Amino acid sequence: MIRSGIVGGTGYTGVELLRILASHSEVDVAVVTSRSDAGSRVDALYPSLRGAIDAVFSLPDVETLATCDVVFFATPNGTAMHMAEQLLARGVKVIDLSADFRIKEVRDWEKWYGMQHACPDLIAEAVYGLPEVNRALIKSARLVACPGCYPTAVQLGFLPLIEQGVIDAGQLIADVKSGVSGAGRKAELATLMSETGESFKAYAVSGHRHLPEIRQGLEMAAGRPAGLTFVPHLIPMIRGIHATLYGQLNLDQCDVQALFEKRYADEHFVDVLPSGAHPDTRNVKGSNMCQIAVHQPQGSQTIVILSVIDNLVKGAAGQAIQNMNLMFGLEEDRGLNMIALYP
Amino acid sequence: MIRSGIVGGTGYTGVELLRILASHSEVDVAVVTSRSDAGSRVDALYPSLRGAIDAVFSLPDVETLATCDVVFFATPNGTAMHMAEQLLARGVKVIDLSADFRIKEVRDWEKWYGMQHACPDLIAEAVYGLPEVNRALIKSARLVACPGCYPTAVQLGFLPLIEQGVIDAGQLIADVKSGVSGAGRKAELATLMSETGESFKAYAVSGHRHLPEIRQGLEMAAGRPAGLTFVPHLIPMIRGIHATLYGQLNLDQCDVQALFEKRYADEHFVDVLPSGAHPDTRNVKGSNMCQIAVHQPQGSQTIVILSVIDNLVKGAAGQAIQNMNLMFGLEEDRGLNMIALYP
Amino acid sequence: MIRSGIVGGTGYTGVELLRILASHSEVDVAVVTSRSDAGSRVDALYPSLRGAIDAVFSLPDVETLATCDVVFFATPNGTAMHMAEQLLARGVKVIDLSADFRIKEVRDWEKWYGMQHACPDLIAEAVYGLPEVNRALIKSARLVACPGCYPTAVQLGFLPLIEQGVIDAGQLIADVKSGVSGAGRKAELATLMSETGESFKAYAVSGHRHLPEIRQGLEMAAGRPAGLTFVPHLIPMIRGIHATLYGQLNLDQCDVQALFEKRYADEHFVDVLPSGAHPDTRNVKGSNMCQIAVHQPQGSQTIVILSVIDNLVKGAAGQAIQNMNLMFGLEEDRGLNMIALYP
Amino acid sequence: MIRSGIVGGTGYTGVELLRILASHSEVDVAVVTSRSDAGSRVDALYPSLRGAIDAVFSLPDVETLATCDVVFFATPNGTAMHMAEQLLARGVKVIDLSADFRIKEVRDWEKWYGMQHACPDLIAEAVYGLPEVNRALIKSARLVACPGCYPTAVQLGFLPLIEQGVIDAGQLIADVKSGVSGAGRKAELATLMSETGESFKAYAVSGHRHLPEIRQGLEMAAGRPAGLTFVPHLIPMIRGIHATLYGQLNLDQCDVQALFEKRYADEHFVDVLPSGAHPDTRNVKGSNMCQIAVHQPQGSQTIVILSVIDNLVKGAAGQAIQNMNLMFGLEEDRGLNMIALYP
Repeated sequence: MIRSGIVGGTGYTGVELLRILASHSEVDVAVVTSRSDAGSRVDALYPSLRGAIDAVFSLPDVETLATCDVVFFATPNGTAMHMAEQLLARGVKVIDLSADFRIKEVRDWEKWYGMQHACPDLIAEAVYGLPEVNRALIKSARLVACPGCYPTAVQLGFLPLIEQGVIDAGQLIADVKSGVSGAGRKAELATLMSETGESFKAYAVSGHRHLPEIRQGLEMAAGRPAGLTFVPHLIPMIRGIHATLYGQLNLDQCDVQALFEKRYADEHFVDVLPSGAHPDTRNVKGSNMCQIAVHQPQGSQTIVILSVIDNLVKGAAGQAIQNMNLMFGLEEDRGLNMIALYP
Repeated sequence: MIRSGIVGGTGYTGVELLRILASHSEVDVAVVTSRSDAGSRVDALYPSLRGAIDAVFSLPDVETLATCDVVFFATPNGTAMHMAEQLLARGVKVIDLSADFRIKEVRDWEKWYGMQHACPDLIAEAVYGLPEVNRALIKSARLVACPGCYPTAVQLGFLPLIEQGVIDAGQLIADVKSGVSGAGRKAELATLMSETGESFKAYAVSGHRHLPEIRQGLEMAAGRPAGLTFVPHLIPMIRGIHATLYGQLNLDQCDVQALFEKRYADEHFVDVLPSGAHPDTRNVKGSNMCQIAVHQPQGSQTIVILSVIDNLVKGAAGQAIQNMNLMFGLEEDRGLNMIALYP
Repeated sequence: MIRSGIVGGTGYTGVELLRILASHSEVDVAVVTSRSDAGSRVDALYPSLRGAIDAVFSLPDVETLATCDVVFFATPNGTAMHMAEQLLARGVKVIDLSADFRIKEVRDWEKWYGMQHACPDLIAEAVYGLPEVNRALIKSARLVACPGCYPTAVQLGFLPLIEQGVIDAGQLIADVKSGVSGAGRKAELATLMSETGESFKAYAVSGHRHLPEIRQGLEMAAGRPAGLTFVPHLIPMIRGIHATLYGQLNLDQCDVQALFEKRYADEHFVDVLPSGAHPDTRNVKGSNMCQIAVHQPQGSQTIVILSVIDNLVKGAAGQAIQNMNLMFGLEEDRGLNMIALYP
Repeated sequence: MIRSGIVGGTGYTGVELLRILASHSEVDVAVVTSRSDAGSRVDALYPSLRGAIDAVFSLPDVETLATCDVVFFATPNGTAMHMAEQLLARGVKVIDLSADFRIKEVRDWEKWYGMQHACPDLIAEAVYGLPEVNRALIKSARLVACPGCYPTAVQLGFLPLIEQGVIDAGQLIADVKSGVSGAGRKAELATLMSETGESFKAYAVSGHRHLPEIRQGLEMAAGRPAGLTFVPHLIPMIRGIHATLYGQLNLDQCDVQALFEKRYADEHFVDVLPSGAHPDTRNVKGSNMCQIAVHQPQGSQTIVILSVIDNLVKGAAGQAIQNMNLMFGLEEDRGLNMIALYP
């Protein structure tokens, strides 16, 4: 059994890791830390886990965490970078669900995240944990930086087109919508039900932290600079991301449906829907799937890609466990075949 | 492997059976019928099942269904009673999720359901599928009538008190609230999002079909007539039932918390929360658990029981599979340890 | 024109006062205070008020407020009691939407609200602002204590029965459900959309602050002690309260429908629905109406009353303005005939 | 008083007309028709209108409607075109909220709406009722075709840029999201709460009926063909449209904020928010306002316009009454200054 630890077990990505790992046949949840709830039973805070998780929150502590084979960081940005080095030195694999190791250019990271990076040396080593791109590197990685939720949905939607160079990388639009759980489990006015229920809005149009991360991924695939307009929106619901992506075809003709089907033919967690479909976020709620549909409305040069994920699963905890499976030589889908909860 | 069939695979209880059975290690879903969608792939209608269920809807037909070891009826009321006899005669076990075999008094059934019963002789044989009450009988049953969703939540909440005679069975109040999926997957004005969203109301206060079913169960436990006021309400959400139950203690003192803990100590799917807790429907969403809390506010004689289930799981498909496990000698919780989806 | 001030203009009851007063033909909103947002335009914080309210938040200050004819306190509990005396001394009428002056027994208040009362002498003078009970007193009052939201819905539902003594005042049950805006505009984990959306729960079953207030009102109407079990619940929606009330008829026969229709025949804001109706909270959303329906299910002795209001209107800001109209000799419904927003 | 009639009073736009007209000082609602509910009181179907509308549904009949000064058609497409001619001939002004007279090119209309037009001769006379474009023509019109909900939000957002030629009319993207009330009050599976709650999806990407209408408006403003990709989405909420619009600036520099402020300086119902704002649909819920914000993220050439309306008010009933006010020489905002319901 793999002995796992979770740092920051009280956020939504933390509790989602617990939900999935509790049913994973090869993993024990040995340590769950929380500064605020140390000493409490995990299932006292999360009654949904009664009978499934028999653990007590402890204070985050390197000694204890070092007894694990793998440690997940489900922490706010700026935490993992202070502990990763010590854990790696003790032979522990680290899977970071925060943004600390996602951006290769440290100055870029520092600008967007507004703090100094505590261990810039590790950034180069960290593997960006999008298995559909970096599978081989992830298998041998000690430190994996899991993609953000928006970047997962957007990159999986754009990649087949970008990699093949069939759309103009200089003029991409990602109009993306997320449920409010993406904002995390924090007492904030802006995500009260009275503030977000029965309403819809865009936010951070001038620049969202996931923009440089998406751009980095697309540029790596394109092999040249990408021009991306990224507009995130808040949906009055809890789970789910829907990316509506627009690109300009630079060929006269291109069977984009076939291109997507071929690109993802062997991917377990990317499902290209039949031509003409409209993926619905509910169909991936609670599951690790990304469902994608491709459109070329009215035969114009504008390609429209629809890409949906559950932000807490394929966009966070599920993808982290997918990476863990790869890092430990397990089948990639072990423990991850949860079916979406419909309705 | 148990070969299973589902009649009425396009309603919410049907698709929930499919979700759970797809992950059940001992069951094959061999036949899924639908009059309206015969010929279509199941996962074309329900993209959440892509990759999990490889089946095509067929017309309901006794010959085909008779090849199964067990047939689930996830049909509107009045369907199972026309096919059950033939299937039983062919050696198929029948688990009915509709109301056809729930009420022992056929005239009562005919009054509340507004039709003549097609096979009244089978009613006596049918076992009411509440495992917490009828476990032994279910194990040897050929025909199980699964309880309604409201009756499950209400009976599990009242039973410990009624069985011990510590509350007055003549004056019970069940104020129960349900998500809209309880109304089924039918094109109806009343359950449009625009009609039920952001609103709350009671309905059927003068008499709901689940009233005689609940009363029958409570009277069997009490051994005498029960007086029950049952008021159902519609919650602007999809899944979940919350029963708030009121009874008058007829003892001076009674440790009701201990009474509940003892009654359900060996039950896998009934979880008595610590004293003072307030169960939240989200904590059982997608799971087969019933969570219960007991209160005696202000030390008065009025006992308040809070009982929550997922109406589609413990209130329908999950309980049906729990019954199947018992009928086929499997562990009762096989395939049913899904953890609730929080948040 | 009546010159009005609002202390605490940034909460939901404050902004609802602004919405209604902006269309009131006899009132000017002269002062709106906020400690946190002093100096900002009101419509910068609340873009829904752009073009309707031309005011800037100021710090709460007696001198400025004393220039008003009436001051509304839309503040947390414990604020109005520190300023009311000075304002009254300057000839300003005070309408308190908080709980500071609702409970006549000061020790009771201090126990439930956990603080010492700052001006107990004013409690006796304060008139409880339920116009359907205290209309005459309100007209001549200097200080009105507006009822809580739950107490408004529950009292209007029980009063006709209690006043006529047709139900047993010793055994009342109020199973009440509220939208989350009742929890106020405060950054709290418990009312995040991710915590309250798609879920339903009871809370404060052991004792909610509105219990003594409701009991006081019912006892005054009954002329003797009342036994009340009050269970509040949280609905996954923003606005609306639905009270489901249970009482035991102590007569053999009683035309409760006629009794309600007679009691409220002259009330502008209490609407008794036809027999058999089920009021829906959406039908009073944004309006000052209380809609009530009466049931006696199955001919039993248990009477079921359904009473719905918008917690922010009849349960708070609307009722406060109804009181203001009475205090200033205006028609009671002036500025209050907003029609509910359906759907 | 203007004597008004409403044909199709049982849909959401019909009941919204009733809500607004009930408070309009210059209009009497004399006739409300419904085939399905003729003979019933309007407020029996819509308890939100109790006390506000004293009318009985009648069968649609030209004789009765001809007694009105103005008739609103809140009917499905294909109804108004059969009655408009007769009513106009009797001197009645006609305001059509359906699509029958929106498209100037009759073959285009017949292709998109799948039926033959019953009175093509009237199409030329009909004035497209977007007051911000056609105010003068509306004032003297006998027949006004009110814009669709999506076309209102999209045109108001694009017009200032298109009219001035500062963006490339050949490459426009409208990513638009609507609450489910836009689908109307019809018993349909797809808009059940269980189907649309807690989920988000695009629909009709290959071509939505509002596409030719939007294109027609934009082309008229541009004076040349427009290339538009229009992707509608369904939001899990009831009211509100949020248009996120993308265009390519074809100047090196352009103060788009100033351009919008100038264009709409005299418009009562178009409100340009301060630079950097993110309009939220809740801030126009129940009101006739369109709130717009302009962004140029990261200084790129891609302009992002955010435009929100309430689909049932500015997108339907409110705009219809705005047109009526113009047609009858009233102030344009008479009866339309309802403030949005927040929260």
